[in-house]
Amino acid sequence: MASPDRSTRTGRAGSTRRQFLLGGAVAGVGAAAAIGADKALRQPDPVVTPAPPHGTGTVPFHGVHQAGIATPAQAHATFLGLDLRDDVDRDALRRLMRIVSDDAARLTRGEPALADSEPELAVSPARLTVTFAFGPRFVARASGVAPGWLRPLPEFTIDRLLPELSDGDLLVQVAADDPLTVAHATRMLLKDTRSFTTVRWVQQGFRRAYGTERPGTTMRNLFGQVDGTVNPEPGTTDFDQVVWSTDGWLAGGTSVVLRRIAMHLDTWDELDRSGREQSVGRYLSNGAPLTGSREHDEPDFEATTSLGFPVIAEFSHVRRARGDDPTQRIFRRAYSYDDAPTGAEVSDSGLIFVSFQADVDRQFTPLQQRLADLDLLNEWTTPVGSSVFAVPPGCAEGGFVGETLLT
Amino acid sequence: MASPDRSTRTGRAGSTRRQFLLGGAVAGVGAAAAIGADKALRQPDPVVTPAPPHGTGTVPFHGVHQAGIATPAQAHATFLGLDLRDDVDRDALRRLMRIVSDDAARLTRGEPALADSEPELAVSPARLTVTFAFGPRFVARASGVAPGWLRPLPEFTIDRLLPELSDGDLLVQVAADDPLTVAHATRMLLKDTRSFTTVRWVQQGFRRAYGTERPGTTMRNLFGQVDGTVNPEPGTTDFDQVVWSTDGWLAGGTSVVLRRIAMHLDTWDELDRSGREQSVGRYLSNGAPLTGSREHDEPDFEATTSLGFPVIAEFSHVRRARGDDPTQRIFRRAYSYDDAPTGAEVSDSGLIFVSFQADVDRQFTPLQQRLADLDLLNEWTTPVGSSVFAVPPGCAEGGFVGETLLT
Repeated sequence: MASPDRSTRTGRAGSTRRQFLLGGAVAGVGAAAAIGADKALRQPDPVVTPAPPHGTGTVPFHGVHQAGIATPAQAHATFLGLDLRDDVDRDALRRLMRIVSDDAARLTRGEPALADSEPELAVSPARLTVTFAFGPRFVARASGVAPGWLRPLPEFTIDRLLPELSDGDLLVQVAADDPLTVAHATRMLLKDTRSFTTVRWVQQGFRRAYGTERPGTTMRNLFGQVDGTVNPEPGTTDFDQVVWSTDGWLAGGTSVVLRRIAMHLDTWDELDRSGREQSVGRYLSNGAPLTGSREHDEPDFEATTSLGFPVIAEFSHVRRARGDDPTQRIFRRAYSYDDAPTGAEVSDSGLIFVSFQADVDRQFTPLQQRLADLDLLNEWTTPVGSSVFAVPPGCAEGGFVGETLLT
Repeated sequence: MASPDRSTRTGRAGSTRRQFLLGGAVAGVGAAAAIGADKALRQPDPVVTPAPPHGTGTVPFHGVHQAGIATPAQAHATFLGLDLRDDVDRDALRRLMRIVSDDAARLTRGEPALADSEPELAVSPARLTVTFAFGPRFVARASGVAPGWLRPLPEFTIDRLLPELSDGDLLVQVAADDPLTVAHATRMLLKDTRSFTTVRWVQQGFRRAYGTERPGTTMRNLFGQVDGTVNPEPGTTDFDQVVWSTDGWLAGGTSVVLRRIAMHLDTWDELDRSGREQSVGRYLSNGAPLTGSREHDEPDFEATTSLGFPVIAEFSHVRRARGDDPTQRIFRRAYSYDDAPTGAEVSDSGLIFVSFQADVDRQFTPLQQRLADLDLLNEWTTPVGSSVFAVPPGCAEGGFVGETLLT
C-alpha cells in the first residue's frame, strides 16, 4: 500500500499534521455552513485566537451519488476532458476507474494518493471533490448501453464551437476551496490517467472564495449578474427528481452538460444599466425580477407598463429560461473563467456553464433551444465549447466509480 | 463624480450592502490574523451563526509605501505587463497615474471605480491591493532619472526567456483573497489604461486560499517545497533596510524583479524523495534544513556525514541562495501558476517569482548569479520570463502613485 518513502514521510510530517489537528479540524463538514468558529473559542488560548484553518474540511467520496454535484459549489474547479487511447479496452477501463477512484478517495480525505510525489500538498483537502463522467466512446468501449441523450447536443444557431474545447471520452471535475489543492489533485489524476488517456482540454474556473460571502449567496458572473437564482435545492425531493437518474447502470447517477460560454465584456460595457436589466429581466443590484424587490420573488410575466408593454420583456433571459413545462428543469453549478487575454482583447472571460439533469433530451435541450432562439443575452455571449457526459452513481468503500457499467 | 446610473444603483444595492455590514465588517484588517469571529458571536442569532464573511477586509491604498508589498500575501494575484502607446507623453503619464490611482483607491475600499460597469462585483474587496511599478521606458518618457539597476537583468545561462513574457513599461500587481475580486479589479484597470497602454503580458498566480492554513505558514510551491523560509519580516527594521529605497523620487519605494520560472513536474517526478531533499538542502515534510528539525532552524553548513561529505550539499539551493554578504538579501512574495497544458504536456506549471529589494544590482543579481551557476534545482526549472521595475512610493489621499516622478 505504502509508497517506498511513506515511513520517512509520516514521521517527518507529524508536526505539520499536528498543527492542523490542533487548529480545530473540521473533518466531515459537507455543507459550507460551519467553519468551526466555536471550536476556536473553546481553546484555552490566552492570546489572540486566530481563525481555525478551514482547509481541513472534507466531503465524503463514497456514497450513493458521486460528490461534487449536490455539494455546495467550492471556490475553484478544474475540468479535464480526456480522450481514451486506442488500446484501452473494457478491462483497461476497469483498471483506470479503480485507480482514479482510489486516488480520489484518498485525496478527498486529505491523504496523499498512492505514490503521491508531493504528499505534503495533499494535507489540506479544503472540501475537495472529484467527479467522473463518461462520454459516448467510453460507454461504447465498456460495451454498455448508452442512454439516448449521450451524444453532442443539437447544433444551435448561436454556437461557434471549437472541437478542442468540446466533447471528450472521460470528464474529471476536480473542485475545492483551495487552488493549490485543486492543482495537486489534478496533477495526480493526470499522472495516473496518462497511460490510458490523452488530454483533450482543460478548463479552469472560479467562484467567490470560501468565506468571502455568506453561504447560500447566489453567485454573480463576470457580467455582474446574479446567476443561478432558480435552482433546485440539494437535499429536497425536487432536487432528487431533477437530477438523479433511475435508469439501469446510471441509477443514482445523472448527466452533465458542460458548455464554455465566452462573455464579450467589451460590447457588454457599451450597454447601459437599464438595457442590461431588460436583457436579463432582473435587477443587477440584487437579482430581483423587474416585477419584484427580492432575489427569490417570483417573476410576474403578466405585469405590464403604463404603456402596455410587458415589464419583463419577451426576449429577456429570465422569461426564455422559464418554460411552461415543469419537467424542463436543470441544476446549475457554473464557474467563471478569466484567462489571460491574447492579441488586442482586453479579456478572455466567460462562464463554464455546468448543469446536471436526469435526462438531457427531456430537460436541457428544449430549454437551451428556447434560449438559442430569442434570448437577448445571446448578443453578448458565444458558446465556444460543448460536451455531454453520463455521470455514473457513487460507490461504496472498496468499490469504484463506474462499477455498475464495468462489472 | 457619480456615473449616470449611480443613484439607481445605490438605492437598489442597499439590501445587499446591508447584509455585508450586518455580517460583521472587518474593515481595515491589514494583517491576516483576525476575521472577526468574535463579532459573529456577539450577534443575537438564536440559530446557527455562520462564519462572518471575510470578503470585507480592506488594506489601505494610501500610505508612505504602496500596499501589496509588506501586505501578507493574498491568495490570488494577477500581474499585468503593459506597454505605453507611442503618443503617451509626460502629461499623459500623469493623467494615466491619476486615473488608475483613483480606481485603486476606490476598489481597495470595496467601492466601485468611477464608471464601474459592474459595481456589485466591487463590494467584496477581500484585502485587495493594487501596486504599480515603472519600467525603463516609463521613466524615460517621464524625463526622470532612472536608477542604474532599472534595466533587464544580465543574461543567465539558465534563462530561456520569451519576449512576450518579459519586460514592459508599466507593471500592475492586483492581489486579493478572492479570484472574482481580482478579475473585476483587473478588468477595470485594463479598461482605464487601454487608451494609454497595450497589454504585453498577463500572468495569474495563486497561493493557499485565505483560511486554508494558519496565518504565517510558509507557502509551498508546486514541487511541494516549503518556499520562502528565509524572508525578512514586514514591520521590522531588517525588512525596511532590505526593501525600501531612500533614493530621490524612489524614496519610500523599491524595486521588483518578476521572473516566470517553469517547473518541470514530469522530470521532477523521476527524482526520489531523498534526491529532492538533497537538491534543496531542506526536508520536504516541514522545510527544516537537513541539519535541523524545524523550519526556521539555522542551517549548519559545516556539518558533515560520517563519510565526511557535507550534510547540506555544495550544490543545494539553500546553500547557493545564502551568500556570505549580508546585504545580498531580498524579500520574496511569489505565486504559483498552473495554466492549462497544451500538446503532450501534462502540466504547464511553475512559479511567478516576485522579489522586492532596494537595489537590484547590489542585492538581487549576485544572488541570482550564484543560483544560476550551481543550484541543482536548475535541472528542473527554466526561467521563461523576466522583468525589472521601479516601484514608486505610496501617496496620500488626493495624491497619486508616481507623483514624485511626474510632478
